[in-house]
Amino acid sequence: NQISHHQGKHCLQLKMAKNTNIRISLPAVCFVWQIAMIILFGVFIRYDEESDTHWIEHRRKKNISTNLENDFYYRYPSFQDVHVMIFVGFGFLMTFLKRYSFGGVGFNFLIAAFGIQWALLMQGWFHHLDEHDWKIKIGVENLINADFCVASCLIAYGACLGKVSPVQLMVLTLFGVTLFAVEEYIILELLHAKDAGGSMVIHTFGAYYGLTISWVLYRPLLSQSKHLQGSVYHSDVFAMIGTLFLWMYWPSFNSAIADHGDGQHRAVINTYLALASSVLTTFAISSISQNNGKLDMVHIQNATLAGGVAMGTASEFMITPYGSLIVGFCSGIVSTFGYLFLTPFMEKTLKIQDTCGIHNLHAMPGVIGGIVGAITAASASESVYGQEGLINTFDFKDAVANRTVNIQGGYQAAALFVAIAFGLVGGILKLPIWGDPADVNCFDDDVYWEVPEEDENFLSRHPNMNHATSIPDV
Amino acid sequence: NQISHHQGKHCLQLKMAKNTNIRISLPAVCFVWQIAMIILFGVFIRYDEESDTHWIEHRRKKNISTNLENDFYYRYPSFQDVHVMIFVGFGFLMTFLKRYSFGGVGFNFLIAAFGIQWALLMQGWFHHLDEHDWKIKIGVENLINADFCVASCLIAYGACLGKVSPVQLMVLTLFGVTLFAVEEYIILELLHAKDAGGSMVIHTFGAYYGLTISWVLYRPLLSQSKHLQGSVYHSDVFAMIGTLFLWMYWPSFNSAIADHGDGQHRAVINTYLALASSVLTTFAISSISQNNGKLDMVHIQNATLAGGVAMGTASEFMITPYGSLIVGFCSGIVSTFGYLFLTPFMEKTLKIQDTCGIHNLHAMPGVIGGIVGAITAASASESVYGQEGLINTFDFKDAVANRTVNIQGGYQAAALFVAIAFGLVGGILKLPIWGDPADVNCFDDDVYWEVPEEDENFLSRHPNMNHATSIPDV
Amino acid sequence: NQISHHQGKHCLQLKMAKNTNIRISLPAVCFVWQIAMIILFGVFIRYDEESDTHWIEHRRKKNISTNLENDFYYRYPSFQDVHVMIFVGFGFLMTFLKRYSFGGVGFNFLIAAFGIQWALLMQGWFHHLDEHDWKIKIGVENLINADFCVASCLIAYGACLGKVSPVQLMVLTLFGVTLFAVEEYIILELLHAKDAGGSMVIHTFGAYYGLTISWVLYRPLLSQSKHLQGSVYHSDVFAMIGTLFLWMYWPSFNSAIADHGDGQHRAVINTYLALASSVLTTFAISSISQNNGKLDMVHIQNATLAGGVAMGTASEFMITPYGSLIVGFCSGIVSTFGYLFLTPFMEKTLKIQDTCGIHNLHAMPGVIGGIVGAITAASASESVYGQEGLINTFDFKDAVANRTVNIQGGYQAAALFVAIAFGLVGGILKLPIWGDPADVNCFDDDVYWEVPEEDENFLSRHPNMNHATSIPDV
Repeated sequence: NQISHHQGKHCLQLKMAKNTNIRISLPAVCFVWQIAMIILFGVFIRYDEESDTHWIEHRRKKNISTNLENDFYYRYPSFQDVHVMIFVGFGFLMTFLKRYSFGGVGFNFLIAAFGIQWALLMQGWFHHLDEHDWKIKIGVENLINADFCVASCLIAYGACLGKVSPVQLMVLTLFGVTLFAVEEYIILELLHAKDAGGSMVIHTFGAYYGLTISWVLYRPLLSQSKHLQGSVYHSDVFAMIGTLFLWMYWPSFNSAIADHGDGQHRAVINTYLALASSVLTTFAISSISQNNGKLDMVHIQNATLAGGVAMGTASEFMITPYGSLIVGFCSGIVSTFGYLFLTPFMEKTLKIQDTCGIHNLHAMPGVIGGIVGAITAASASESVYGQEGLINTFDFKDAVANRTVNIQGGYQAAALFVAIAFGLVGGILKLPIWGDPADVNCFDDDVYWEVPEEDENFLSRHPNMNHATSIPDV
Repeated sequence: NQISHHQGKHCLQLKMAKNTNIRISLPAVCFVWQIAMIILFGVFIRYDEESDTHWIEHRRKKNISTNLENDFYYRYPSFQDVHVMIFVGFGFLMTFLKRYSFGGVGFNFLIAAFGIQWALLMQGWFHHLDEHDWKIKIGVENLINADFCVASCLIAYGACLGKVSPVQLMVLTLFGVTLFAVEEYIILELLHAKDAGGSMVIHTFGAYYGLTISWVLYRPLLSQSKHLQGSVYHSDVFAMIGTLFLWMYWPSFNSAIADHGDGQHRAVINTYLALASSVLTTFAISSISQNNGKLDMVHIQNATLAGGVAMGTASEFMITPYGSLIVGFCSGIVSTFGYLFLTPFMEKTLKIQDTCGIHNLHAMPGVIGGIVGAITAASASESVYGQEGLINTFDFKDAVANRTVNIQGGYQAAALFVAIAFGLVGGILKLPIWGDPADVNCFDDDVYWEVPEEDENFLSRHPNMNHATSIPDV
Repeated sequence: NQISHHQGKHCLQLKMAKNTNIRISLPAVCFVWQIAMIILFGVFIRYDEESDTHWIEHRRKKNISTNLENDFYYRYPSFQDVHVMIFVGFGFLMTFLKRYSFGGVGFNFLIAAFGIQWALLMQGWFHHLDEHDWKIKIGVENLINADFCVASCLIAYGACLGKVSPVQLMVLTLFGVTLFAVEEYIILELLHAKDAGGSMVIHTFGAYYGLTISWVLYRPLLSQSKHLQGSVYHSDVFAMIGTLFLWMYWPSFNSAIADHGDGQHRAVINTYLALASSVLTTFAISSISQNNGKLDMVHIQNATLAGGVAMGTASEFMITPYGSLIVGFCSGIVSTFGYLFLTPFMEKTLKIQDTCGIHNLHAMPGVIGGIVGAITAASASESVYGQEGLINTFDFKDAVANRTVNIQGGYQAAALFVAIAFGLVGGILKLPIWGDPADVNCFDDDVYWEVPEEDENFLSRHPNMNHATSIPDV
């Protein structure tokens, strides 16, 4: 006990080597940026015609028979599901570390709350700026898109989990959202590629953005905090909350901004099936790779979701139900193998420390999704889609009215490269060294949070003993 | 160990000082009140025309073209979100105490399940009593309102968490729902104030009701159970489940009974933005107030929600997106400062022990919400709302057809005082002393629950050892 | 410590007595069955007219005015709620055991993901096979039905929790889904019984199926793992997540495939009320049965849900709001008494070891639900339902156009017996002995999962000590 006390002091000195005091920087960033948001919103953001009190006049003018035709009723249930994925899904998925659950769910909360505001502006400027009054008119679809945009930054956070300060994360989000808006503009508007569930726009971009940042911030002595890099029994169960809410609501994610009617309907079916399929292959590979076939929680928590990621681009297409199963089948396998072999390889050889394994869950399945989307688009035909269906699904209208499916496939492939390129280049920002923890303090909530002192053991053994004085010295 | 055993016994004697045996009182209250509900429902409650099998004839008569016009499809998704807030949101938010998680989530479950039944009756008598047959006709909007009503009692529970028996909580709920129905009738029907998300009706009333009860039940020796008043690591993570489900679904809360069409749509946008804004200011104040800028879980779990509370009244109004951000900005700051300074002050000086800090999360942001609502209403104009929009939003019809926005603002302000007054006066009921715990036993599940004896430590250290005989004596 | 190490070794030898190595069998089953699914989906499953790109043409042909008439918008919110019940509800309800939380939520995930695929095929062949092209056309209602079907297998899992291997569970699911599809076909198509929420089809069948399996697999020496059969404090809180999500979303479960319009609306109201009522009687019986009236988490986690089970068949009927309260009242009592007296009796006398007490939560309330449904149907009348309403509610059309309510009541009762019979007979399959654990290893995640070695205690006591070298030997 004396020795450990001594070492505790020694350790405290090590800690001092890096200044993790964020008492000025974090409040400053939060305040200044939030005030900036207020000003920019004041200048640019207004309600759109469906969320404005003039809706009643708008309805009459457009001869809309019912309030139900307000986009709100088409999209709000999906929006709420996506919202849950962003805050509970991603948040709890990152609680798996034994002593970084506060940081996992808490910083996820912070940066998502900032990111959605910045995303409304950035995406608005690129996609929804009204040419007459230079305002951005927002409705429920903008809220969904803002959540989508933030998802890419949360993915990037996954690679850095436990190794960066909240101030750095705010910067990561500021740049990430900005890059996202540009990349999304190029892919969706200029290339006219389809990506309803964001295999390319969200997952591929977000993952390579995060991996590059992690590579830039490489810590050679990270093994000093190795004892904190694992989970404990209950933190793994907490992470399953995240996994399951992501898994269950992924059909909403991939269908939230799909076309009204059959588009949303089909995206749900495809995603539902791909996800189910990737669960089985994940369990299979996880079991086959371990002694006695024991399953690994890391695989179950992550690779089961690969089917959803990989179905992002093609979710709206007529990929057929068994096509969806095949996509889930393959991506579950690829993702689990990634956790088994690629993550250690990347850390050792490529100097990329990827805490949550986003390369396996988002990068590879995202790329698969982009490729599947390109192939499915290129092989679309009027005989399968119907003439109108084909035009509807790919929006072959206006400027791209004459585009063929083969050309569309080519643009889809180009879009994938744009997403990868933006991720790789975007991540090379050297994050300002504001309050990041020393190697020995990584993955430790104690650096940024008031952590309760606990003696659960004592309480559970002596539930009847309530005198504060009777706590034994430890 | 001997000493602690001795003190354990001593402690046991202290416990005996109060009789916490609820074996007769709790079952009696549950049974009798539930039977009363059955009888009263038999006399008064019927399906409304949209949930009755005569709907098909009703449709034909009213020339309604589609089943979708059934209010069910407008409101059911919002209802389910509100339902989750009531049972998981409030329930898990109250699991933060290290040894009162059962009581937090379990008693929340009990009183909400009773309260919604009683609320259907009370609200029905005041708002929905059919003048012809003296029946209350219920549909999905009634279910939402019942959930809303119960929310005020769950807020009040927050102030008393850990210090009252379940029997007392049932009484608290019985009176709380009754008062709520009267107060709501005065505010919404007589004053014709608007309060879609219940800043005044739900939050302000509920908070002052709970605070007054807590003041009446003041325990001078509560520090005897001080060692149980904190959290442990995992109980804080559990509480985050509550926080996040409240936070994510709050847009549904504030829009659930708003006007069809633009009303619901706008309420969602405003609430979404206010909540995002209060997250950033909460993190800022929490960090600036602590050594090294370390964040405090209590703030993150609670004050991040202040934006939703404060946006309750004005959610339907044209407060503008940046107006919503400002409301969230301010309420996040006020709420966090409340946790830092007001709660200790209130306990020491005003003799109000507020376990969950409802004064900071509900009372102050609720009052802010009422004021914001009054100002926004008073400054509404036809140029912003449009002529029809203004009438629609404020329901300037029938008896109040000639009301101006200024007068509406005045009535909104009056409503706020009604809510406060009902809370303050209503809480002065001295709850019958039925089974409340001694000061030394507060915040301890062991009083009302069969708590599992555990030795997690042993299990985790010796996962391979399964002989019951090998458990060391403790 | 030496002794315990020794006993650990001894215990390891006991473990060896049974081969729990699933490294070949589990991956083999997962791979082969998933590939079979892909092939069968390729042959049989296609999009239906509402999820196909031809929807736009279909709309024009059928003169459907709006995309909202796509069944997707009627049913998707309910589908997502049901989906949450299946994966988070059932999954987390089964995390209550102190060292089987991984298995509870993880194997639930695996078998549900497989089961929904197999259910789409089996239910498709029986109910939706297109006579022209021999394809099954799927849409959102099929997804809901697949989730429903799987629910019966998850119920059966509840009886076997902790005593079977994942390979056995896959077999249980394969047979369970198959039997379900046949039983469902007989009950819904041949007998033309109504069972919107599946009191009979899902709960009664699933429960007796699981109980019979548990009886076949009786383990006389199960007490060897007695020390693992209980909960710990936080595992009980995890289980409450499952309870609450089941409880909150049960109105969606019982209304998900009910008739559009008043049918769904009424099913929600009835279920909401029945559930509220069973909470109160559960608390009452739980309290009255224990010393000092202390509540038992097992009852609160389970019997509170009995009202939802018992309202499954009659949810669409005009059972009246107070009728629903009465159903919840009784089923809460019966279910809690079951946990108190029947479960121990069944284990001792009938040799049925029912880990989760599914007899109390699903079998008895399911039977109650079937009986209530039969009585309510038999006593239906035109004066209450209206002429059209009666025909609509019971689908007295085509082949059964002349059926009277009395006869309907008889068929409802017959349906109940079919459900019980299928459960009892179906469960007598002797599950292949593939990797099931020894008696001494039941309820232990360590058999099938890589469980993290933890020393939470050390970490919490010495949060500042981060040198790996300083971990004391344990």
